[in-house]
Amino acid sequence: MINRRDLLRSSGWAAASIGAATFLRPALAADMATLPIGNGERPMMKYPGKRELIVLTQRPPQLETPFSVFDENIITPNDAFFVRYHLAGIPTEIDPAKYVVKIAGAVEKPFSLSLDQLKSDYEPLELVAVNQCSGNSRGLFDPRVAGGQLANGAMGNARWKGVPLKAILDKAAVKATAVQVQFDGMDGPVDPATPDFAKALNIDHARDGEVMIAYQMNGEDLPWLNGFPVRLIVPGYYGTYWVKHLQQVTILEKPLENFWMKTAYRIPNNACACIEPGTAPSSTTPIDRFDVRSFITSVMDGHKLPANKDVELRGFAFDGGYGITEVDISSDGGKTWREATLGKDLGRYSFRGWTAKVKLAKGDHVLMVRAVNRIGQSQPARPLWNPSGYMRNVVEQTHVTAA
Amino acid sequence: MINRRDLLRSSGWAAASIGAATFLRPALAADMATLPIGNGERPMMKYPGKRELIVLTQRPPQLETPFSVFDENIITPNDAFFVRYHLAGIPTEIDPAKYVVKIAGAVEKPFSLSLDQLKSDYEPLELVAVNQCSGNSRGLFDPRVAGGQLANGAMGNARWKGVPLKAILDKAAVKATAVQVQFDGMDGPVDPATPDFAKALNIDHARDGEVMIAYQMNGEDLPWLNGFPVRLIVPGYYGTYWVKHLQQVTILEKPLENFWMKTAYRIPNNACACIEPGTAPSSTTPIDRFDVRSFITSVMDGHKLPANKDVELRGFAFDGGYGITEVDISSDGGKTWREATLGKDLGRYSFRGWTAKVKLAKGDHVLMVRAVNRIGQSQPARPLWNPSGYMRNVVEQTHVTAA
Repeated sequence: MINRRDLLRSSGWAAASIGAATFLRPALAADMATLPIGNGERPMMKYPGKRELIVLTQRPPQLETPFSVFDENIITPNDAFFVRYHLAGIPTEIDPAKYVVKIAGAVEKPFSLSLDQLKSDYEPLELVAVNQCSGNSRGLFDPRVAGGQLANGAMGNARWKGVPLKAILDKAAVKATAVQVQFDGMDGPVDPATPDFAKALNIDHARDGEVMIAYQMNGEDLPWLNGFPVRLIVPGYYGTYWVKHLQQVTILEKPLENFWMKTAYRIPNNACACIEPGTAPSSTTPIDRFDVRSFITSVMDGHKLPANKDVELRGFAFDGGYGITEVDISSDGGKTWREATLGKDLGRYSFRGWTAKVKLAKGDHVLMVRAVNRIGQSQPARPLWNPSGYMRNVVEQTHVTAA
Repeated sequence: MINRRDLLRSSGWAAASIGAATFLRPALAADMATLPIGNGERPMMKYPGKRELIVLTQRPPQLETPFSVFDENIITPNDAFFVRYHLAGIPTEIDPAKYVVKIAGAVEKPFSLSLDQLKSDYEPLELVAVNQCSGNSRGLFDPRVAGGQLANGAMGNARWKGVPLKAILDKAAVKATAVQVQFDGMDGPVDPATPDFAKALNIDHARDGEVMIAYQMNGEDLPWLNGFPVRLIVPGYYGTYWVKHLQQVTILEKPLENFWMKTAYRIPNNACACIEPGTAPSSTTPIDRFDVRSFITSVMDGHKLPANKDVELRGFAFDGGYGITEVDISSDGGKTWREATLGKDLGRYSFRGWTAKVKLAKGDHVLMVRAVNRIGQSQPARPLWNPSGYMRNVVEQTHVTAA
């Protein structure tokens, strides 16, 4: 077992240098954050490998990225990337030299894969992809819904490097009877009555050549709290499928029907994943791809801007992988829209940056941003409600004063 | 059997006054229409109960509405409403006094319903709903696809009056084992090897209270060629489900797997119902709801407009029933958009009229219109291709010159 000091000395594994005790006593900080929701006061704390983030819960760690981070760079820095665990039994010691991912189930050739093998035996794949919590922005729903009261900081964009799951499944020789692939990580329940966290993807999806086991994030080892040493990357899909500390890949001949697939992370089974507040969905389906979202990052609600001067706004948009084709900005509450200039295309799963100039007369203004993707999906004018507060993608409004 | 003269004397059934021979010899007309597609020359003919319409085929009648009609009124006049039959064996004599719709299959109480009973025994429902052919605008696809080469005239908006299917199913006491409801009309194949035209809806959909058997269209009997005396109305769904001359409603305990459900009218089973041109979809699903569309009706491609003067544009938008919440107009090819003023709300299944002022400098301009619905669906910048040419909903471009 590698201990903390060894790890700190080995530059490649710096992220692994965390002991159990540390997790229960993150560095205290004086800062508090106030999210734009009722009871939105949150402590800011510095967890190992992280800068100060907004703490939603400590056991398990659920850390939200301060929104200002998204204005720094279209790539979210590792130390500011949001953290969301389900179970308090998170790994606190990992030996990279002994770490293996097991491939088992409905395959002809089950095998175990060490980290070295993962890095040397396969053609690596790199892609930029957003990870977003299903419940990102949940705290902004009205009526309120149960669940972690997050503002807009449970998302991030990173360059992931790893191995396509397809290559690994091919090596294991998946049987024709396979229907799904189950993913299980090191995190587990503290109380044995709590169902272990495991998720599954349909076999065709798992073999699409883009779903991958990643060992790098933005050119470095994954931060511990983002799944060190390897996590599943499911481009365009909500974070619930991005299993951290991935240890077991099991090919299934029947769909997984555990708590995390059958009960949790389900949305109303209709085109908007929405229902009238207070009603119950007639049927549900597992959450899957992101809908379209767009944000202004350079100006926040309540800011003051210079009047009668060109002001450059910036922000980003993203979707579930069709690709953003247009971003429009309004500074008059939606009466007129101006096409923003799209930034560099980092791939269809990435945040897409945009810039746009506005000139505001003296007074109060509502800035709005709306994106459209390649298949014509856009964003609703009013939020779409569902009981779990998933997939919020309303056209955002930023109230500013020009003076 | 009522003959032609009897019917002409009975004002209520004027539409029924057509004999078989008439269909095979529609009034010849000198006019030709040229649709904006290759080989787009079409004869214009006056069929019984119709003004001059664009003829795609004569056996069976497939008549497209000239686009200029849509600028007359947000409600499409009965005599200009498009016609689309699949089978040449269309009814040419109907006796309204003896006409019945049979309700059979997985019900406790099968029964037959006369037109008088339909009109007097049930609470009537009226709603305005668009009917649109799945292949509307198919001829505009590039690469071209097989099938009727239609421009944008295979759609129409009417006020339908009839009886919710739910009330009729309730009376028949549907068994708990029911899964679908099959609809069959009077039209049939000429060659017995051709599969008869019948469609089915899932039982919950059939019982939604809006699917109805309509006996009036815009305050009159249905035109013969639009399904006299009764047709099925499936608000928000493509016309393939709107079975004409409805005679048989059969409640099924297994999904209908005939040619019209299993082979025809299917779309790629993905979020855009689209694939790369020239490829084949990996799986398909029956076509269902309309996507979002919007049109300018007051100005056509190639028109000249006065320069430097306010010009009021008008048109309409519609979707599959979530309701249009915003229509935006661009006169500079999409760089800037201005919110149009929405017209009267005739219900979420209706065309929604809009007006907007533009002022154009001398020269050539591209006018564009784009709508967004309540759940954030909009229209793609580039057409979404599929092998059957269904569901085209690209942002339309109208090239005009201001002078």
